[in-house]
Amino acid sequence: MVKILRVNMASLECTFQDVPEQYAGLGGRGLTSLIVSKEVKPTCTPLGPHNKLVFAPGLLGGTNCANANRISVGCKSPLTGGIKEANSGGQPGGHLAKMGIHALVIEDIAPEGRWYQLELTGDSARLVPSTVAGLNNYAAVAKLAGEYGPDKSYITIGRAGEFKLTAASIAFTDRELRPTRHAGRGGVGAVMGSKGLKAIIVDPGQAKGVPVKDKEAFAAASKRFTKALTTHPVTSQGLTLYGTAVLVNILHEAGGLPTFNFSQGRFDDHEAVSGEMLNQLTTERGGEGSVSHGCMTGCIMRCSGIFPDKKGKFMGKWPEYETLWAFGPNSGINDIEMIVRYDTVCDDVGVDTIDVGAAMAVFMEAGILKFGDAQGALDLMDEISKGSAIGRVLGCGAATVGRVYGVRRVPVVKGQSLPAYDPRAVKGQGVTYATTPMGADHTAGYAVTANILSVGGTVDPLSAAGQVELSRNLQIATAAVDTCGLCLFVAFAVLDIPDALAAIVDMLNARYGLSLTVGDVPGVGKLVLEAEIDFNRRAGITSAADRLPDFFLDEPFPPHNKVFDLTDDELDSVLKW
Amino acid sequence: MVKILRVNMASLECTFQDVPEQYAGLGGRGLTSLIVSKEVKPTCTPLGPHNKLVFAPGLLGGTNCANANRISVGCKSPLTGGIKEANSGGQPGGHLAKMGIHALVIEDIAPEGRWYQLELTGDSARLVPSTVAGLNNYAAVAKLAGEYGPDKSYITIGRAGEFKLTAASIAFTDRELRPTRHAGRGGVGAVMGSKGLKAIIVDPGQAKGVPVKDKEAFAAASKRFTKALTTHPVTSQGLTLYGTAVLVNILHEAGGLPTFNFSQGRFDDHEAVSGEMLNQLTTERGGEGSVSHGCMTGCIMRCSGIFPDKKGKFMGKWPEYETLWAFGPNSGINDIEMIVRYDTVCDDVGVDTIDVGAAMAVFMEAGILKFGDAQGALDLMDEISKGSAIGRVLGCGAATVGRVYGVRRVPVVKGQSLPAYDPRAVKGQGVTYATTPMGADHTAGYAVTANILSVGGTVDPLSAAGQVELSRNLQIATAAVDTCGLCLFVAFAVLDIPDALAAIVDMLNARYGLSLTVGDVPGVGKLVLEAEIDFNRRAGITSAADRLPDFFLDEPFPPHNKVFDLTDDELDSVLKW
Repeated sequence: MVKILRVNMASLECTFQDVPEQYAGLGGRGLTSLIVSKEVKPTCTPLGPHNKLVFAPGLLGGTNCANANRISVGCKSPLTGGIKEANSGGQPGGHLAKMGIHALVIEDIAPEGRWYQLELTGDSARLVPSTVAGLNNYAAVAKLAGEYGPDKSYITIGRAGEFKLTAASIAFTDRELRPTRHAGRGGVGAVMGSKGLKAIIVDPGQAKGVPVKDKEAFAAASKRFTKALTTHPVTSQGLTLYGTAVLVNILHEAGGLPTFNFSQGRFDDHEAVSGEMLNQLTTERGGEGSVSHGCMTGCIMRCSGIFPDKKGKFMGKWPEYETLWAFGPNSGINDIEMIVRYDTVCDDVGVDTIDVGAAMAVFMEAGILKFGDAQGALDLMDEISKGSAIGRVLGCGAATVGRVYGVRRVPVVKGQSLPAYDPRAVKGQGVTYATTPMGADHTAGYAVTANILSVGGTVDPLSAAGQVELSRNLQIATAAVDTCGLCLFVAFAVLDIPDALAAIVDMLNARYGLSLTVGDVPGVGKLVLEAEIDFNRRAGITSAADRLPDFFLDEPFPPHNKVFDLTDDELDSVLKW
Repeated sequence: MVKILRVNMASLECTFQDVPEQYAGLGGRGLTSLIVSKEVKPTCTPLGPHNKLVFAPGLLGGTNCANANRISVGCKSPLTGGIKEANSGGQPGGHLAKMGIHALVIEDIAPEGRWYQLELTGDSARLVPSTVAGLNNYAAVAKLAGEYGPDKSYITIGRAGEFKLTAASIAFTDRELRPTRHAGRGGVGAVMGSKGLKAIIVDPGQAKGVPVKDKEAFAAASKRFTKALTTHPVTSQGLTLYGTAVLVNILHEAGGLPTFNFSQGRFDDHEAVSGEMLNQLTTERGGEGSVSHGCMTGCIMRCSGIFPDKKGKFMGKWPEYETLWAFGPNSGINDIEMIVRYDTVCDDVGVDTIDVGAAMAVFMEAGILKFGDAQGALDLMDEISKGSAIGRVLGCGAATVGRVYGVRRVPVVKGQSLPAYDPRAVKGQGVTYATTPMGADHTAGYAVTANILSVGGTVDPLSAAGQVELSRNLQIATAAVDTCGLCLFVAFAVLDIPDALAAIVDMLNARYGLSLTVGDVPGVGKLVLEAEIDFNRRAGITSAADRLPDFFLDEPFPPHNKVFDLTDDELDSVLKW
């Protein structure tokens, strides 16, 4: 009873359909990217009726597999003009999978100014006028939870999505009904806003789990996979104790922590904004804080800590490493509590912390705000929800701030901001930023593994040698991981412990009655990437867009004083096979 | 003694060089586009050191040929991301030609915050700290004229150029030292600003005219050309009496006058904002007003009237048709004096009236301002010079307003706004908007001629038939006209009076000692277009960008209720030969 649900925002019709042959065997990013590539007019106006917004849990979603309940969101991006997949933790991914909803496809647009919410169960779907239009995510979810109950999960946009800002995110509730998990990148929230869809109420009802062809084999493979995750030091200790922010001190040490809008690779006050500091303050303060917290059912890495204020009250989730970096070192701000506040504003208004954080540093580069002005940054963040001109500019992300303020050093590729690893000091990451069809995205091929962490081998981060192959292999593997609905962080274990990948393949075989081998995995990744690249080419995005901004090629980056020196030909070879 | 002058804004060096072989025989747009195509890194950051800003008079500049003193400005556009040529009337084009300066190439960038002005004579050039930084164009030119004298001409940017806004223009003084002539489109003023170049003082000194190989033949051909211009009703009467605004009533009548952000093709109050009204008010009020005014030496069409206020004092130049349209019908405003004021703000702060006018209508579409709110529009215009967030957004043009305010109906191609002829009711114009390498630009292939005016034949404006060939031929011819430095309006005579083109060719032969024929002209146009398209391809702009926004294909346009229905294949055939 696996279905695709199509929701037409103009006619208000909701239609369940069988999964067409052309989409068989795909889930998560594989499914969103194939649907977008095959069904969306590549040159369409991203905020118009010809774009589609696709939600899809992964192939292992809804099972007992650890960390497999991510949800992918796909569309043509209003930020990059190309194809977009952004994925998120939280509860809705697992719920949709259990409900047998393979993909939810939002089509056409509602009349301007009308807001709807989608009530969704396993076998029914209904659009009704939204009761939460005009509210930000925390208030919207609280109101919806009051109306629909705490046993549901919620997908919402905040004011940024209503304003259709190009850095607007889509929020997914975690297990405590907090809208802290986001499909952040590429303006997917703006596309949801353009369609007039304010919220989705996901009611898993009595759904107990997905059908598994060979339960015994699945359980055995699942156990092996769990063992790998609980064995590897990154997935069992580093992430659990310090969150992704474990990376602050590591990247500082490596000289790859972009500071003052990508001007240098180390930040004097790095310890003040580190994962170790999150752990220390959370432990000291106790109360509602939590060092080890899972963002979704089935998570065993538990990296999404909860940050308490001085009185022990919930203040926000632990900011991710990229959030701490963007508002911290890259904006010259060393106050971790303020960064938690920016992060909470991002969660509430619904924007990508990376692009808006990077935008803050571009404001500072433009001289509108001083580097390190923590209160000024908070005041500016508060403008987003007001819908003021400056708030909207900020909420559109770094590229728009750069354009409006005439800034030359704008760290974006395909219009999307670079995250927290400087491409001159972590060159494999630079290759991924330049070449992924998504616009600069660290998760698309996370070369920090071999460049910095010596996971899955070691490749000198300061040299061009080996980076093309590293990024290529990671991009292929990641497209497959994203298709399964697995949290990307399983990659740490997969790269170092050979049985982890075998266990994933065995779970896929047991779940669907297949006979895949480990050797089949790259083919899945390539299929997905080829669909994405094909869409981008038809949308007018060529290899000329697979380039970093000039200043990464021109300005040596302290302390190592390297420039990004991969040639155009090398970059053009990355996604060819 | 024809030279290329290269000015390096980092080293402050000015170097005269002989014209290299690869640029021989070209001028105006032909020369700017070849230099940009051959010397500028196509993927460079437009506001960075790798872009170049090129000024070039045309092949017939500085001669006694009528209407031949236009100046071309080329660069990689920060608005479109592709190659840009914008040309202007005014005095500097003729002056540079007489001074033997074939092209002026501004290279690299000055340190952030430093402003220079270039003092230029026929054989010397010197960069000095600018005395007019922070001033808008009228004040800047007045101050410079006080310092350097009235016998010079001046090239300046206003605050918009200093802010590096993507609709910033470059101003060229007319014969009365007013900065009313602009290279308006594509953000060329932002590129000048990015280089730290605030002004150019052009001192023609004793330069008497350019060397002509065969003076007698030139004089004879020039006389024939003048006769054609003084014979054709458009160039001898329509433009002279009513300016380009003669088109308001004509386009209204044709149902092709975009009104309320391209929602309908007629405007009830069209007469109130027409060329006839400019003529009437100017005639009634007298004083400093002038119905017949030439913007540059050698102009015999004299379309650039001067508008007096109620007391007869200079209030502004006659707004062009596209300016009247953008702030008038397209913004629902029927007050011609207010439109003159917006136009004067544009001239002063230095922005493209088309893109900023179209942006005003997009603000209205977004609901930030009501259609028809003339005072609100003026208040918003005044924000540009202040550098407020909303002012900068407006000064970046329609695409940025659309992005920041999440607007779906944004009338741009390649990021540049469509001008004053709806592509659904003047379909040849739509073909030009979609396919010219410049981004939507009516002047690149002015199909209004055959579509509306029955000049150069007649092609039904409401049908797709014949538009591809019409636009192709006009784009080729225009590239040649722009290479000669001729005012585009000579095309009216050229299209209807065969001897006009022969006379142009005879003048080229007499000037340079060549033996071109009329049959050689298309080859020049194609050469220029090929260089432009080649640059765009390397910059990452493909045929997928040769498309109109969805709403022109989706929404029938009253009163004719047509949609734009040229196929993608038809559009892709336009610039192939």
